[in-house]
Amino acid sequence: MHDDAQRYHDVRQYTEALAAPLSPEDQTVQSMPDVSPTKWHRAHVTWFFETFILADRDPDFRPFHDGYWTLFNSYYESKGPRYPRPDRGLISRPGAAEVTDYRLDVDKRMIDLLLTLGEDLESDFAALLDLGIHHEQQHQELLLMDIKHVLSVNPLRPSAYPEGAHHVDRLTAAQEWLEMAGGIVGLGNDANGFAFDNEWPRHEVLLRPFRIARRPVTNREWLEFMQDGGYNRHELWLSDGWARVNAEGWRSPLYWIDDAGQWLQHTLSGTRPVNLDEPVVHVSHYEADAFAAWAGARLPTEAEWEVAATASVLEHADDQVWQWTSSAYLPYPGFHAAPGAVGEYNGKFMSSQMVLRGGSCVTPPGHARPTYRNFFPPHSRWAFSGLRLAADA
Amino acid sequence: MHDDAQRYHDVRQYTEALAAPLSPEDQTVQSMPDVSPTKWHRAHVTWFFETFILADRDPDFRPFHDGYWTLFNSYYESKGPRYPRPDRGLISRPGAAEVTDYRLDVDKRMIDLLLTLGEDLESDFAALLDLGIHHEQQHQELLLMDIKHVLSVNPLRPSAYPEGAHHVDRLTAAQEWLEMAGGIVGLGNDANGFAFDNEWPRHEVLLRPFRIARRPVTNREWLEFMQDGGYNRHELWLSDGWARVNAEGWRSPLYWIDDAGQWLQHTLSGTRPVNLDEPVVHVSHYEADAFAAWAGARLPTEAEWEVAATASVLEHADDQVWQWTSSAYLPYPGFHAAPGAVGEYNGKFMSSQMVLRGGSCVTPPGHARPTYRNFFPPHSRWAFSGLRLAADA
Amino acid sequence: MHDDAQRYHDVRQYTEALAAPLSPEDQTVQSMPDVSPTKWHRAHVTWFFETFILADRDPDFRPFHDGYWTLFNSYYESKGPRYPRPDRGLISRPGAAEVTDYRLDVDKRMIDLLLTLGEDLESDFAALLDLGIHHEQQHQELLLMDIKHVLSVNPLRPSAYPEGAHHVDRLTAAQEWLEMAGGIVGLGNDANGFAFDNEWPRHEVLLRPFRIARRPVTNREWLEFMQDGGYNRHELWLSDGWARVNAEGWRSPLYWIDDAGQWLQHTLSGTRPVNLDEPVVHVSHYEADAFAAWAGARLPTEAEWEVAATASVLEHADDQVWQWTSSAYLPYPGFHAAPGAVGEYNGKFMSSQMVLRGGSCVTPPGHARPTYRNFFPPHSRWAFSGLRLAADA
Amino acid sequence: MHDDAQRYHDVRQYTEALAAPLSPEDQTVQSMPDVSPTKWHRAHVTWFFETFILADRDPDFRPFHDGYWTLFNSYYESKGPRYPRPDRGLISRPGAAEVTDYRLDVDKRMIDLLLTLGEDLESDFAALLDLGIHHEQQHQELLLMDIKHVLSVNPLRPSAYPEGAHHVDRLTAAQEWLEMAGGIVGLGNDANGFAFDNEWPRHEVLLRPFRIARRPVTNREWLEFMQDGGYNRHELWLSDGWARVNAEGWRSPLYWIDDAGQWLQHTLSGTRPVNLDEPVVHVSHYEADAFAAWAGARLPTEAEWEVAATASVLEHADDQVWQWTSSAYLPYPGFHAAPGAVGEYNGKFMSSQMVLRGGSCVTPPGHARPTYRNFFPPHSRWAFSGLRLAADA
Repeated sequence: MHDDAQRYHDVRQYTEALAAPLSPEDQTVQSMPDVSPTKWHRAHVTWFFETFILADRDPDFRPFHDGYWTLFNSYYESKGPRYPRPDRGLISRPGAAEVTDYRLDVDKRMIDLLLTLGEDLESDFAALLDLGIHHEQQHQELLLMDIKHVLSVNPLRPSAYPEGAHHVDRLTAAQEWLEMAGGIVGLGNDANGFAFDNEWPRHEVLLRPFRIARRPVTNREWLEFMQDGGYNRHELWLSDGWARVNAEGWRSPLYWIDDAGQWLQHTLSGTRPVNLDEPVVHVSHYEADAFAAWAGARLPTEAEWEVAATASVLEHADDQVWQWTSSAYLPYPGFHAAPGAVGEYNGKFMSSQMVLRGGSCVTPPGHARPTYRNFFPPHSRWAFSGLRLAADA
Repeated sequence: MHDDAQRYHDVRQYTEALAAPLSPEDQTVQSMPDVSPTKWHRAHVTWFFETFILADRDPDFRPFHDGYWTLFNSYYESKGPRYPRPDRGLISRPGAAEVTDYRLDVDKRMIDLLLTLGEDLESDFAALLDLGIHHEQQHQELLLMDIKHVLSVNPLRPSAYPEGAHHVDRLTAAQEWLEMAGGIVGLGNDANGFAFDNEWPRHEVLLRPFRIARRPVTNREWLEFMQDGGYNRHELWLSDGWARVNAEGWRSPLYWIDDAGQWLQHTLSGTRPVNLDEPVVHVSHYEADAFAAWAGARLPTEAEWEVAATASVLEHADDQVWQWTSSAYLPYPGFHAAPGAVGEYNGKFMSSQMVLRGGSCVTPPGHARPTYRNFFPPHSRWAFSGLRLAADA
Repeated sequence: MHDDAQRYHDVRQYTEALAAPLSPEDQTVQSMPDVSPTKWHRAHVTWFFETFILADRDPDFRPFHDGYWTLFNSYYESKGPRYPRPDRGLISRPGAAEVTDYRLDVDKRMIDLLLTLGEDLESDFAALLDLGIHHEQQHQELLLMDIKHVLSVNPLRPSAYPEGAHHVDRLTAAQEWLEMAGGIVGLGNDANGFAFDNEWPRHEVLLRPFRIARRPVTNREWLEFMQDGGYNRHELWLSDGWARVNAEGWRSPLYWIDDAGQWLQHTLSGTRPVNLDEPVVHVSHYEADAFAAWAGARLPTEAEWEVAATASVLEHADDQVWQWTSSAYLPYPGFHAAPGAVGEYNGKFMSSQMVLRGGSCVTPPGHARPTYRNFFPPHSRWAFSGLRLAADA
Repeated sequence: MHDDAQRYHDVRQYTEALAAPLSPEDQTVQSMPDVSPTKWHRAHVTWFFETFILADRDPDFRPFHDGYWTLFNSYYESKGPRYPRPDRGLISRPGAAEVTDYRLDVDKRMIDLLLTLGEDLESDFAALLDLGIHHEQQHQELLLMDIKHVLSVNPLRPSAYPEGAHHVDRLTAAQEWLEMAGGIVGLGNDANGFAFDNEWPRHEVLLRPFRIARRPVTNREWLEFMQDGGYNRHELWLSDGWARVNAEGWRSPLYWIDDAGQWLQHTLSGTRPVNLDEPVVHVSHYEADAFAAWAGARLPTEAEWEVAATASVLEHADDQVWQWTSSAYLPYPGFHAAPGAVGEYNGKFMSSQMVLRGGSCVTPPGHARPTYRNFFPPHSRWAFSGLRLAADA
């Protein structure tokens, strides 16, 4: 098979491998509006290829199923009406096996198309194919985030994957401040290889000298914050964050369970004691910001983070945990969304969210890069989100 | 097998027959807080036998699974904590197949116990067994009500059962007023055979002469109400009902679909045109009351309904559709709830609900009787609820 | 002045006397959706006379202010659109003084009309006048209920009236069961004097022998219930009631304040210690029902209450506190609402409410009678509602 | 009187002048959670002087009223518990006249203190006095924003101030793009004169060349946007904005009323036709952003706005309307909140809000400056908020 077909095949295969241990029932549940059912993810990424590539290429195109057009559109207003997002868990049919049929049908048509077109794809098509592949990788991470949440609400404390399958590494190196010089630096992607539109255009910013931590914050450090009253001291918190702490009773990271004095943690492989050497994960921006205030430090801006990551001085820059920055998710100077539905991919979400940088233990290998901009609302906790400290020089 | 074991076996078998056409995904979804997933019903009725019978009979009793004790308790405060009802659809595990295992295990223990005890059960035990069997029958009807709702929210308009499997009959006889004499009449069950505690004690009430319709209201009559502006005329409605009409946009019975001028109806066997000769079904008490006002009549009290049903003058008294009465669901004079958890079965729900009488096309054969008191809040529409008119003499 | 004009004048005057101690700010606030601002009550009862009497009598009728037609319509759909009830507290204008102007203008027109018509009013007119007068009396009680609630949410614990102005008497007589014979008894008003339509028609019901308490339940008895864990014992409560107890944290009657171990009570004359000899007041139907279960008794039906009250055996039958019954608020057999807007007065509210009988310390003198049917939803607590026990013979 | 006492006196006087035309009822109402009652504003700014200055200066300090400490604390966690913000409209007492008493008492104590201290205030004290004065000015603008909203929900369409009292000027000059060079520029206040802490520290940023509009957008231009389907075209909107448009039915700026085809506008002086030459006002950030997209432009960053304003090339830079920028409200590099309660003034709100620059027709004269950072959530519309366009060079 040629390279593009192989790449397409591989990403599709990996999604199915992630879903394989999950029962039809597991794949159906939506445990909160932010979460999507596994089988919805599997179908939606398929719809993306069908809608953005197959539908435009084949004059005799027929959708696999008319109703799927609406059911599996996530948020593309340009592609017509959509089934309401908070109700995705109410849809029992198509079932997981029918979604497999859908995937196989689209895969066959895609592979046929790719083989017909040969190795030298025209650039527009190649860009869409790349986008579809990276889109499916994003949903691979979402699938894991979401099924972790789904299983967390079950009092039987189930496990989805074998021990160690999607584990976080221990951070054994000592913490250390790295001194960075600042000055006029380049930010954003220069388009060697794939990048999402929100990483463009590359541009210059002026940075003051700063310090950044060599490694992310650990559970051990987070426990000190908790034991020092971190969740009870209003002066450490943003106002919105303090309101959340009280309204939702936050006393620890998401998925931590106080089991008669011992802290346990819900993971994709079941419930186990919190490992103090692992990076803290499943904290909101509000919590990360409060922790930094408690530590006499601050979160890095995304520019600071990117400069340091590009300089290859950071440990765990691109795996383990996403790292909250102090930057709001806004367009880079000169950003323009592409016309049409593809333009809805990123730009319209640039409001009321914060940027995370790095990558996580559930990010597909090769997906992230130093210019990658992940983003979530500041109260979100179900992503694999931690933090790395920074400070003024 | 002796009679009790056979009865137990039959009711258990019928539940499984109802669930058989439903996929694991179908059995998992909860489409609104009132609805429970199919596999939850299958497990809960099993928990009822396990908790109320097996746990009290066997000194070495061990529950099938410790976690099920909480997951499948519906509302018995005396039996300890319960998993929140509105979140039943968030539970992917145990899956449908594991629920089958649970059922088979309890069945084996129950049958063993029944065979050990022999034909002459002591009365307390026999009463609990009867209660468990009738309880499971109630959930058989709920299972069908619930899966009908679950599939109704799916834009693919799925079907669960073959055409005609749970259909309503046509009412071809002409409507007619039956004159009833009133006077002092007996109401409630005199305990020949099983009855729920809410049918007790039998007591006397004084009725004025009244008229009652020979048969329930049909879709044809309901359509006339709609075409005469029934849903737009405030003067026909109770105040709470009028608020619901406007807040929820009621314009027809639940499950009716206006398909470019033709009225279709979602059923357990898929979507098909409304049949004008069938009894109207899936209307709330508010709608039934407004229809009666429009027709220059009223709903019967439950006493009037029972007197007429006992006199065997009503057509479709015990099948097709449940019939809203004008009676609030309150204890009969002299009613006392039994001590312990069994006492929570009915009495604590005697508030803010209205009585329905009769039975429906999804009521298990032999389950209902003329003294049977069904009840739902006045806004509920997902039961198989219709109406029969009455009037002063 | 002739009798009708005098009666009109007196009821109008009494409303103003109740409002006199309240500041313009007091008269503006709406502390929950059930509550209406004082100046709204003062204007609405005026609107009632203007709309139901003046508008129909004068061919040259002009409303005092076009905008008031909508602002001060409570719930009469037949009279056109209404300003939303939960937003009554958002209306600063007309102010209290402008409402006084409105009242004086309508009063002048009403008195002129009454003097013109002379002593012998035609029966339709006389009935509307009576209705308007009794309607204003109902709002006099609502005004006091509402301002009590308004001031209760103020942490400064203000007082509206001088000590003793609207106080409850002490019940010093010993409690005692009264034995009642039952049998076929008459219920409802026989139309000697004014009665609301919901008291009609008089009809017969069959009662079993019963017992009823000579006097209402006191704070002393309620405190025993509390100290015996009444608010913590699920087995005493209706299911909806138990949900309220937990959702709203009920631990005592409304307006009780636990002040370092001493129970205080917010009253219309400020905060003072709970007097154990007074009847308990501001309890919901759910609480009354739970208390009765705790006491091994039950609430009386409204028929039982009326029979006992008519027999003049009850103490405090018509003053001190409204007494919850076990009867749902439903139409009497043969009830028909009047045509037109007047028909909206009572009938459309006959759903999901419970009947209270008696009268209270804030009911205007002469307003209540043994056949009077007051009604509130079972969770309501801001009326002056208490209870009297009953039991089977 | 010396200068500081005079400044104190003047700002206090201006607040009272704004409140003078408002009735006690007007001063009591809270029409939405964001709004505070007039008398609350009048009391809260008084509490600020009492708490932050008087309480720390006088060893014999006694608060004017113990209960006010809680009632009139806005959001200072360090100062103890606070009455819930959404319930400020439930407080009838203290009334408007009692608030006047409170103001006079604190004024007397403040003037006495200032006269005692003489002209040369120590710097900490002078800074707190300045903060209190500018704080009261901020509430003067809030008072006008809030009472405008309060009166807008009244269907009688009341007016609070004489015609022209707080009017917006017409913008008669032609629109024009101003070319700006970019480069490394200074941003923020250099501390000549008073500035809020969020304007500090002054720092450098790198700007690309850009264009900025000479004057704000007018109602005429906004109407073109509306007529071109601006509120119906999803592709112009941020995702959160589009959700608001649909959820809240936005079809025009807040306070516009479609009166049978003519656009009217609610103002502080009553309802009048929209003047097409005035700047558009009461639009959210979402609307401003969508308008800019429709115009083929964008909003300026706050740095761009400040550079242009400092260069004195903008018309209406500091009056008429606040101008939304594309910048999230975040701390400047090197920002640190002051210790103690004063540190809660700005820093803790730096989340999920957008910066506005300029000033408005209801901003007290002399209050704003080119470095001033106003901020509101992106959906807010009740501020006097408009926009000015920008574009890449």
